[in-house]
Amino acid sequence: MNLSKEIHLASRPIGLPKLNDFILVEKKIPEVKEEEVLVQNIWMSVDPYMRGRMDDSPSYIPPFKLDSPLEGSAIGKVISSKSTKFTEGEYVISMFGWREAFVSQAKYLKKLNLTDMPNSLPIELHLSILGNAGLTAYAALFRIANLKPSEKVFISGATGAVGSVACALAKSIGCYVVGTAGSEEKRKWLEKELKIDVAINYNDTRFSESITQAFPQGIDVYLENAGGEQLRVALDNMKQFGRIAFSGMIDGYNNVTQKPGPSNLFQIIKKSLKLEGFISTNHQDLNESFLNCAYQLLNSGKLKWNHSVSEGIESSPQAMIDLFTGKSFGKTLVKLSAS
Amino acid sequence: MNLSKEIHLASRPIGLPKLNDFILVEKKIPEVKEEEVLVQNIWMSVDPYMRGRMDDSPSYIPPFKLDSPLEGSAIGKVISSKSTKFTEGEYVISMFGWREAFVSQAKYLKKLNLTDMPNSLPIELHLSILGNAGLTAYAALFRIANLKPSEKVFISGATGAVGSVACALAKSIGCYVVGTAGSEEKRKWLEKELKIDVAINYNDTRFSESITQAFPQGIDVYLENAGGEQLRVALDNMKQFGRIAFSGMIDGYNNVTQKPGPSNLFQIIKKSLKLEGFISTNHQDLNESFLNCAYQLLNSGKLKWNHSVSEGIESSPQAMIDLFTGKSFGKTLVKLSAS
Repeated sequence: MNLSKEIHLASRPIGLPKLNDFILVEKKIPEVKEEEVLVQNIWMSVDPYMRGRMDDSPSYIPPFKLDSPLEGSAIGKVISSKSTKFTEGEYVISMFGWREAFVSQAKYLKKLNLTDMPNSLPIELHLSILGNAGLTAYAALFRIANLKPSEKVFISGATGAVGSVACALAKSIGCYVVGTAGSEEKRKWLEKELKIDVAINYNDTRFSESITQAFPQGIDVYLENAGGEQLRVALDNMKQFGRIAFSGMIDGYNNVTQKPGPSNLFQIIKKSLKLEGFISTNHQDLNESFLNCAYQLLNSGKLKWNHSVSEGIESSPQAMIDLFTGKSFGKTLVKLSAS
Repeated sequence: MNLSKEIHLASRPIGLPKLNDFILVEKKIPEVKEEEVLVQNIWMSVDPYMRGRMDDSPSYIPPFKLDSPLEGSAIGKVISSKSTKFTEGEYVISMFGWREAFVSQAKYLKKLNLTDMPNSLPIELHLSILGNAGLTAYAALFRIANLKPSEKVFISGATGAVGSVACALAKSIGCYVVGTAGSEEKRKWLEKELKIDVAINYNDTRFSESITQAFPQGIDVYLENAGGEQLRVALDNMKQFGRIAFSGMIDGYNNVTQKPGPSNLFQIIKKSLKLEGFISTNHQDLNESFLNCAYQLLNSGKLKWNHSVSEGIESSPQAMIDLFTGKSFGKTLVKLSAS
């Protein structure tokens, strides 16, 4: 193993990323020095938030550098190690996705703890529903929105990794769950696989009325995972003292000129609403209790997943683009090598 | 005292209220029955939120009825009483403004406790900075936004009753306070009378840059008292984990077609912001501690007030209109009779 192919950012995308905003580069893998580890990536994750890092604007994480490899979470296997913390054959999670292999100081790697994980489950779930997406759903519902049993919950982006975990978690404590998706195929998956109470296609012309019908007494908690029109409709249908957790707004990621926000923010006062944004990085302390919950739900078949998988590092730019054109279904992953 | 003049809603305003949306009606005052009290109004309050009640749409309080007297807070004097709870000559607060006199069941009246109030202060302060507006400011900063000493605060609508109390309260615990107002006259009042750190005219073309300059390290707490452009600029300048208390958004009250919200709501996630709306009715338990604070600030000259006063019930519709055209300065009151 001498060479690694990796994806660099060739230019900052304007609006939706295009294939020629990315470039494939082959590089020699450097020698492993003291305290370093050589890792071969097996799976990498392609996430909407990465779009933000492609712009040169300040955010909670710095922008990607041009002509450098992109970054994103990845699961890899230790090939050789000069650190006492890792041994050959172990699985690690890192932020060094978008490349086939890499050498890193041990401190940037996290051991993947598979001891509690049921054997029947595939390892790549740790990049989707068992990873930050799942933790995001858990923190959103139980810490940010303080969801209680039997409350009425609206979950946008319900077929995505965050949304589908949120649906299963909310159902598991006896909540009434309404979720939205962007196609009839996805809507049906919500009904049949996640068995939520009402599944709605937000591209339907009667979307707004459907939400009102689904919540005759109003919404206690809205998981904002979409942005745009869904936020407006949610605000109109919130109950007094309702809570909104903002975990993502995919709708605005590619807008060069930002779209205006909803015209009904006055509902925040009218209904004494609480809105809160967060990122999962600040809620890592919840990870163990989240995983306990998730393994139980997976074992009992109450939590399902969808992965959009492509193969080979070359396929990753297109996978990124498909994220925003509604072609992907569930968490987007790229398989980089056999595990 | 046989007759009382009162203002009825003649038609539901479209956009900004017009004089002929109101009508002056003279009515015979009914006889005082058991458990009832006859009150002569001395002062009445004219508030932006009343505009919402002129529309026939559901809100946290029901809409005004057509051809019935409007309602709003008022201070009056007991003329005669058939209730053991009130005696002649006492001062009461009620929601029966917009009329010169009225008969009410005792249970709808609240005795005005003047024992702790410094003698030098005028009674009508209980309709402005010592009333719900002041309590709103107190609850916004100390309960909703959890303001801490030395934090950096942005207060919109700073010359209004809510805003000016908020400025004085925030200064009193050692915060850095930046306030906005809509004219140079109001801006100067903030500098000279309230002595806040920076006073900015939001109609200035360099408004957005002025806010960024005033908060080089960002805003900890924003008191949303205005809506529109000020909310957008605040969102862009909030610190990580900043808090926004929504106590009013005067900008949107008269819009027939609601204006779009700010295009930068993504900041809520980027910066893990907390936004919360509330109405003072749900925070009455704070009233005593608020009044203690306010009396101290008034005694030491650190809390000032502005009243826009007109005289006579006939002047009240125009006073309502002036609220929304920026002509009023501070709390709008109508003097209905001598105290």
